[in-house]
Amino acid sequence: MTVQRRFVLADRPTMRAPRATDFRLEEAPMPEPKAGEVLVRTVFLSLDPYMRGRISQVKSYARGVEPGETMVGEAAGEVIQSRAEGFQPGDLVRGHIGWQTHAAVPAAQLRRIAPDGFPLSYHLGVLGMPGRTAYFALLDVGQPKAGETVLVSAASGAVGQLVGQIASLKGARAVGIAGGPAKVAYCREIGFADAFDYKGLDDDALVAAVARTCPAGVDVYFDNVGGVIHDAAMANLNLGGRVIICGTISGYNRLEQQDTGRRHLRTLLVKRARIQGFLVSDYAAREAEFEADMPKWLKDGSIRYREDIVDGFEKTPEAFAGLLEGKNFGKLVVRAGADPARQ
Amino acid sequence: MTVQRRFVLADRPTMRAPRATDFRLEEAPMPEPKAGEVLVRTVFLSLDPYMRGRISQVKSYARGVEPGETMVGEAAGEVIQSRAEGFQPGDLVRGHIGWQTHAAVPAAQLRRIAPDGFPLSYHLGVLGMPGRTAYFALLDVGQPKAGETVLVSAASGAVGQLVGQIASLKGARAVGIAGGPAKVAYCREIGFADAFDYKGLDDDALVAAVARTCPAGVDVYFDNVGGVIHDAAMANLNLGGRVIICGTISGYNRLEQQDTGRRHLRTLLVKRARIQGFLVSDYAAREAEFEADMPKWLKDGSIRYREDIVDGFEKTPEAFAGLLEGKNFGKLVVRAGADPARQ
Repeated sequence: MTVQRRFVLADRPTMRAPRATDFRLEEAPMPEPKAGEVLVRTVFLSLDPYMRGRISQVKSYARGVEPGETMVGEAAGEVIQSRAEGFQPGDLVRGHIGWQTHAAVPAAQLRRIAPDGFPLSYHLGVLGMPGRTAYFALLDVGQPKAGETVLVSAASGAVGQLVGQIASLKGARAVGIAGGPAKVAYCREIGFADAFDYKGLDDDALVAAVARTCPAGVDVYFDNVGGVIHDAAMANLNLGGRVIICGTISGYNRLEQQDTGRRHLRTLLVKRARIQGFLVSDYAAREAEFEADMPKWLKDGSIRYREDIVDGFEKTPEAFAGLLEGKNFGKLVVRAGADPARQ
Repeated sequence: MTVQRRFVLADRPTMRAPRATDFRLEEAPMPEPKAGEVLVRTVFLSLDPYMRGRISQVKSYARGVEPGETMVGEAAGEVIQSRAEGFQPGDLVRGHIGWQTHAAVPAAQLRRIAPDGFPLSYHLGVLGMPGRTAYFALLDVGQPKAGETVLVSAASGAVGQLVGQIASLKGARAVGIAGGPAKVAYCREIGFADAFDYKGLDDDALVAAVARTCPAGVDVYFDNVGGVIHDAAMANLNLGGRVIICGTISGYNRLEQQDTGRRHLRTLLVKRARIQGFLVSDYAAREAEFEADMPKWLKDGSIRYREDIVDGFEKTPEAFAGLLEGKNFGKLVVRAGADPARQ
């Protein structure tokens, strides 16, 4: 193949859900790696909720994507040409490659993936950014203790499913909030002590559902969603409770608007509780801790992991739109090219 | 005098500001101390914003006062009769005595005040609960570093004036928010680097005033008030910012109602910041740290302290109502009886 395909941002979705047509497929000549660069063929593309923020105009922790620019994202792939020391054709790598089938990437921006018996796609999920997010946000910010209750929203998702299992491993009682009976059943299957379906519940019913599934109250709330589910968790927070703000997906389609709703300042005071924001990039220096635990937990079956693999690079925008509607079940990845591990 | 006077709660102020008539003056025979008790004559009564919560029906960190019961509060006074070991007439003490001129109190609930050259009333303020609040909330929860900006609301009040001065002592840049030009001037006089008057400012003007007085952003926000001033601080919060919820006085007259307004979950995430509630009673075991610093700072002039002393026990309810409207200037105390130090 002598052609590179990529998705560029065509239109900003402002105050609405993204549509597949917000992205435009372009073709270009195959990139030529410069000195110090590596030509990578994308095998798996990661789709993650944070990407919604990158296509809004709202100031965030990273620069946004402008219309006409290639959409950003992590990918895992195969080196097909190398002009950098330490990389050779056939090497597996991961990095910020973007939504494109091939990319010439500076070697410093890539991480080699050593053969480890795990599917390549795992390096975009349980062994990648979502895995590190679950691990450091829960353990370092949430600090769950044995016997405590850890409540998790988006509980069958890329991060949530791992949070619940890590909490259980540490002796805490994990409770999941998920959309639909199948996802709730999956939470129970992988070791959450309890779980409930938030769909169709009004504000009071949400508070009651948290109270029912967390009879001893909530010690740690791992918040992936914000909004009224946040309120229901806060209403059940224990003395000394800790709330980790890892995502606010319920508001991702209206980032341009002020988020108004219940304040919880009085609850924080009365409960001497804390709410803290988390960003995985702050933990780059501590990856070794994660690397020491997660592959081991996966191998010995302590952690189970579910992916939602969409086949075909051209389906990337549609899969991304579905992610923000909760259509995925497990960590969402796109298979953009042949998986060398499965040839 | 053979009569004890006390204020009992006559009526709950629900969804309104308290009035002097919400309390009723009662007379009773002088209490007789039982074995293990001490009869105390109240010299100074402390009035503090938290008392507003105690006369609401909303569940909080402490039991509320029921109509007909004596109003709670700290006081400092003189032992006039003792049936407890270690106390004798003439001793000065502080404790949870309530709004009454005399009380028979179990000795275990009292703390002796050793002669130290400070006014007795200081043991209800800078050397008492408000002092410990400022000290532990700022240093332990806020953790200000040299060169950082510490923003304080209710900045000329019992707690706020100390927070600004302790922050300055630790090399931080203190900025105060206060009601009216005299209070703003006082903040500057005692060492705040800057201060502004929140009165008459709309939401946008509040954000702009914080931005103007905190040009390097806000690293620590010491929140005594909640509400729209909280929003203005959040809008200027720096990466890794810390917000201490010490009081929410802006909402104290509507505790029965849900507090709605801006959420700041996305800000917390993007800034990797934290909001944490504080209650001074959690620090009882660490009082020695405070005792080692605060009297020394007062003696060497590092800390200055302003009280608003109201004369006359019968003025207690009126002074309390004024406190919640910001009518006091400095720490509010009532002189309920002759001060033995000034005879």
